[in-house]
Amino acid sequence: MRNLKVMTAYRGTKYHGFQRQSNALTVQEVLERAVSKVLNEQAAIIGCSRTDTGVHAREFCFNVKTESKISNIGFCRGVNGELPEDISILSCEDVSLDFHARFDCKGKEYIYKIHCSESKDPFGSDLAFHYRRKFDIEAAKKAAAHLVGTHDFASFCADCTSVSTTVRTIYSIEIENSGTSVIILVKGDGFLYNMIRIIAGTLIDVSEGRFSPDDMPKILAARDRLKAGRTAMAHGLYLNKVFY
Amino acid sequence: MRNLKVMTAYRGTKYHGFQRQSNALTVQEVLERAVSKVLNEQAAIIGCSRTDTGVHAREFCFNVKTESKISNIGFCRGVNGELPEDISILSCEDVSLDFHARFDCKGKEYIYKIHCSESKDPFGSDLAFHYRRKFDIEAAKKAAAHLVGTHDFASFCADCTSVSTTVRTIYSIEIENSGTSVIILVKGDGFLYNMIRIIAGTLIDVSEGRFSPDDMPKILAARDRLKAGRTAMAHGLYLNKVFY
Repeated sequence: MRNLKVMTAYRGTKYHGFQRQSNALTVQEVLERAVSKVLNEQAAIIGCSRTDTGVHAREFCFNVKTESKISNIGFCRGVNGELPEDISILSCEDVSLDFHARFDCKGKEYIYKIHCSESKDPFGSDLAFHYRRKFDIEAAKKAAAHLVGTHDFASFCADCTSVSTTVRTIYSIEIENSGTSVIILVKGDGFLYNMIRIIAGTLIDVSEGRFSPDDMPKILAARDRLKAGRTAMAHGLYLNKVFY
Repeated sequence: MRNLKVMTAYRGTKYHGFQRQSNALTVQEVLERAVSKVLNEQAAIIGCSRTDTGVHAREFCFNVKTESKISNIGFCRGVNGELPEDISILSCEDVSLDFHARFDCKGKEYIYKIHCSESKDPFGSDLAFHYRRKFDIEAAKKAAAHLVGTHDFASFCADCTSVSTTVRTIYSIEIENSGTSVIILVKGDGFLYNMIRIIAGTLIDVSEGRFSPDDMPKILAARDRLKAGRTAMAHGLYLNKVFY
């Protein structure tokens, strides 16, 4: 028995997220079909994370156990050959049998991408949130600074009933502006459901003056989803890196 | 009567090039329909260039004459509202009545984009040529240097019977590598049919050792399309800038 650690990237536009669903097309289903064909056995892949409908991944890790003797490069080429254009295998390596893509993940980095311009971007209408107003980077940076660290993020969670704790640690939030793009890069040990999208939406609300940057501590303290800002649209979100 | 100079950008994937055709969807047709609706009169737009099926534009200029009193920003917003996701109006300004987007164009800059990686790019399979081998940047740069300047480019033209001269001036060719992307940036006073795609294809042939960089002068001197390399695929090509 072998355990393969595989890195993949996907454009989430056409998929109902990563996790397999009985009634909608997901990335997991498409990957499992391609992997099973190449391994010539029924493969069950374990993903590092769920992602929402329309969310993208520039680096997503899964592991899969197999009896196959296929080489790592043969696996990558074979599976890539079976996959559609919007899912790509980046790498494959053998790891110990107890490696688990979800439980062993030590941290994640997400990007929220905003296209700030009067004109839409004809090359990526599904790859960034189109925002027609000016984004106030300085105000957003000040607000974001309050969120860095270990906090109870219950105000930034869409549905927290299924988790044992809403305490998470954000290592850093960087906000960069290049041309018409604003990139919000968030690195942390783990994230609650919709947490990055609510952080991004709240920073957009800060940019519009609906919140002041110094409102963040009391929004955190409230532990109430209704106190934070909007949930930013899914198609601006990318899982960018996963750390083990 | 007014004459509007309009900058637009488009993803060419779905279109049979810019120029109107009776039997296939083109960018011109879609733009004219949207512009006519907003100006409330039958608009005839004059493009700066033809582009091939699948070729993209990050900046493409057209002009259109109108009796409408619409503001420039109203024109941009109105036309953008009528256009599909893959065509965008960037700007609009009033110019003198004798301005002609094609005849007054003093120069153009094209990009040829190559995704160099074993893995495909899930975010842009139609936005760059996927090349699974290593691209030899240094050899390509040496070859490209021979093409800069004023030359007879008959060897780099797919069908030269309709032009009065095949002499053109290339101001510069820059080749850059960032991550898995190779960008070939070509600036010149004007280009023959398929010229950039044949230059890009020939540089790929140089990278593969089919030509040496020092073969370029004799390829130019031959004035024979069969002496140059392959025609690189259309979906890697972008009209990047137009100069007036």
